[in-house]
Amino acid sequence: MLGIELHRNSGVSLARQIYQALRSQMTEGRLKQGEALPSTREMAKHLAVSRNTVCEAYEMLSSEGFIESRQGSKTRVANGLLLEKTDLPVDDTEESDSSTLSYLVDFRTGQPDLRCFPRSLWLQLIRKASEDLPQDQWGYSGTEGIPALRKEIAGWVFRSKGMAARPQDIFITSGATQALHLLAELLSAYGKDIMMEDPCHIGMLRVLQGKGFNILPVPVDKRGLQTDLLKRNSACAIYVTPSHQFPLGGILPAARRAALIRYARENDLFIIEDDYDSEFRYCGPPVAPLYAMDPQRVIYVGTFSKILFPALRIGYVVLPHKFHNQWRYLRRHVDVQNPPFEQAALTEYLRTRKLDRHVRRMRKLYGQRREILLQAMEEKFGRVWRPWGDASGLHLALEFPGMRFDEKFALRCKEFGIRVTPVDDHSIRKGVHLDKLLVGYGHLEAKEIRQGVSVLYECMDCFLKSGR
Amino acid sequence: MLGIELHRNSGVSLARQIYQALRSQMTEGRLKQGEALPSTREMAKHLAVSRNTVCEAYEMLSSEGFIESRQGSKTRVANGLLLEKTDLPVDDTEESDSSTLSYLVDFRTGQPDLRCFPRSLWLQLIRKASEDLPQDQWGYSGTEGIPALRKEIAGWVFRSKGMAARPQDIFITSGATQALHLLAELLSAYGKDIMMEDPCHIGMLRVLQGKGFNILPVPVDKRGLQTDLLKRNSACAIYVTPSHQFPLGGILPAARRAALIRYARENDLFIIEDDYDSEFRYCGPPVAPLYAMDPQRVIYVGTFSKILFPALRIGYVVLPHKFHNQWRYLRRHVDVQNPPFEQAALTEYLRTRKLDRHVRRMRKLYGQRREILLQAMEEKFGRVWRPWGDASGLHLALEFPGMRFDEKFALRCKEFGIRVTPVDDHSIRKGVHLDKLLVGYGHLEAKEIRQGVSVLYECMDCFLKSGR
Repeated sequence: MLGIELHRNSGVSLARQIYQALRSQMTEGRLKQGEALPSTREMAKHLAVSRNTVCEAYEMLSSEGFIESRQGSKTRVANGLLLEKTDLPVDDTEESDSSTLSYLVDFRTGQPDLRCFPRSLWLQLIRKASEDLPQDQWGYSGTEGIPALRKEIAGWVFRSKGMAARPQDIFITSGATQALHLLAELLSAYGKDIMMEDPCHIGMLRVLQGKGFNILPVPVDKRGLQTDLLKRNSACAIYVTPSHQFPLGGILPAARRAALIRYARENDLFIIEDDYDSEFRYCGPPVAPLYAMDPQRVIYVGTFSKILFPALRIGYVVLPHKFHNQWRYLRRHVDVQNPPFEQAALTEYLRTRKLDRHVRRMRKLYGQRREILLQAMEEKFGRVWRPWGDASGLHLALEFPGMRFDEKFALRCKEFGIRVTPVDDHSIRKGVHLDKLLVGYGHLEAKEIRQGVSVLYECMDCFLKSGR
Repeated sequence: MLGIELHRNSGVSLARQIYQALRSQMTEGRLKQGEALPSTREMAKHLAVSRNTVCEAYEMLSSEGFIESRQGSKTRVANGLLLEKTDLPVDDTEESDSSTLSYLVDFRTGQPDLRCFPRSLWLQLIRKASEDLPQDQWGYSGTEGIPALRKEIAGWVFRSKGMAARPQDIFITSGATQALHLLAELLSAYGKDIMMEDPCHIGMLRVLQGKGFNILPVPVDKRGLQTDLLKRNSACAIYVTPSHQFPLGGILPAARRAALIRYARENDLFIIEDDYDSEFRYCGPPVAPLYAMDPQRVIYVGTFSKILFPALRIGYVVLPHKFHNQWRYLRRHVDVQNPPFEQAALTEYLRTRKLDRHVRRMRKLYGQRREILLQAMEEKFGRVWRPWGDASGLHLALEFPGMRFDEKFALRCKEFGIRVTPVDDHSIRKGVHLDKLLVGYGHLEAKEIRQGVSVLYECMDCFLKSGR
């Protein structure tokens, strides 16, 4: 009867199977409009199921309007159900972006060492924090983030960078990327042009371009943004990484900082200060943020992705008061809020000063790895290269005067089993920094760093011999 | 000397305090450019700190370019540091959007009962899942979400709604709001107009408007979208809630579903199907999604905010294959990914079928509460009102023919201590549904519902007597 096949152990209820079978017969036209269905009694008998099961299936069909039944008359197929069949999706396989090619040594940038992360401590904290979470925080608890976390972050930026920020100016985000995404929406009311350091983080460039911004590049040298090249233009904001220029590594000197602030004031524009990894500075303490110099004009973006682990997805933005309400509105219509568990765990991690300890430990470790990288480079390459930037962060820019590191070179490295990034990948105007490579070392052990440098040497040798 | 005051128990290192004091004196012009600083020895003696402490402060100043020191000569203030002082931020207090007014009875919509959520079970799962989380998932683990969760969701939508979706078409989001936000970005390449049900969820309307879409409203009646009013126009997509129209509550009948699909095919547009709470249907099982009728044209949006708890921030979208790569690109530049802990816990919750059990339990409870609401309404209001929509969801639309529920009425209710929402708040064209109110009951206990209805009665009485 009606060609219904039932599978008793499929995990799908029998009623639903009957409903589905009948429904497809109706939309595909095998059961025509106005046609009568068997009574529930007949159908149940035929399919050897209980009559209740059939009644349930008929109810589903009826309440969704597939069938119509009137008191005393037969149940019939409703009108207007016919649909031509569409092609089923092709059963392709596709590469997920989570599947990473396995490299022998992966010198990618922006990667903290997850092996050193105090997992069990974190798990304790997240358990404790989740247990203690007040009930209202299981519901919608506000776009700004948990109040206790905002307060702890205010304490943390003051302890670690001498930056005085009020908890109510601190808004939690899902990492620095979301912060920039929302800032781009916020600032789009002020103009269509934005200045960026060149080179800069290409991901951040794309966030701004994706929001329709026209990018005005400002060149960078060893000390960061070349403020003497700032010209009067139509930009509404400038995005900078003064604590550790990405990718070239300079720390913006005080006179340039003052010049940048003066420039922003004269031209009435905002400064977005992305402080993505200033905690890891190996000579002296972290640099004081620009924010301290003009909290009404500088929007500060911080993140815990590099200090703790990227999957945490917690960053923050320190916002001038006039943006607060607009920010809330935007966040509410973008993704509402961060989940509370990680926020609560991070609050505890900060409150108990465990973050301070972790940062100190990691700074020491990353500093040693940087030394190992420099030493390995010197042993292998002698004096044909020089490091760029200050002793800070998780990656290093290496200059090889006369070399041209392009896509072809990166591909050749891949064949050799290592990943390095040409600075040109992050350049807005291509070709200016072709002689520089980025090497991320923070997440690699001494052995891996040395092995990677050896392979890089072989690879470069082969690249040069082959005439590229 | 230089008016430096040190606070020994402030939590800020002495070196940083010295650095900060000197820095502000330089940017404020009390220390002039070229001026010599005391030697580290003198300064240490004067401040009664170790010389190392002073050296550290000087190093910070030097590496940031505030001071310059050359071998054999005095340390001097660098050039170009002077900045005019800005006004400090005013110390205002502002209302956080997490601070909710306390109502006697809060009939807001879209609120599951958090009191009934099996917290301790969830905490067990999140602990277990966090402990078992592979190391690579502490880093960036992919924009799509955890593979195991995508697989479990595919199983869940099949079990619960008979919807066949492939795991690789399922993309995890931070709730349904983010799903729509990203879809708006995705679809903006296809046009500038989008159709929406009228009335519709005003938050979702704002998401689309915020992305620059022009909204074309399509009227809704008791059975949902009035497909006979669909006209040929320039829209690239239509946003619908066919399983339980928000806010009016209709389940879209099969013939209208077929008409909608045919319309979308003829006019080559996409359908965004927001299935925000179809799990809670009190007569018969959940409605089969539109998605099943045309997986190449329907983009399905689901969420766990209503089934579990809003702070979870996990939703998903089932995407036609041709959008996959673009989706990944967008998500990467919006906020990269969801955090993994909640994803892993939800995976377990689904795998062990605990979600199925929870939904069954809550469906029963919410169904009872709906009955209590209907009964209380009848007792208080007699026959002057009628309920709209099907027996589903966490809220009910009530029609009072002849009444005008506007902002004034909502304010009057607030004075009486209850929150109700005029349907007009969610209307695109105002004034069409002035005689309807929304009452969210899912999160309220019987006593609260009855009390709320009593207060609503008093309030309406007073509103009518006062001539509004």
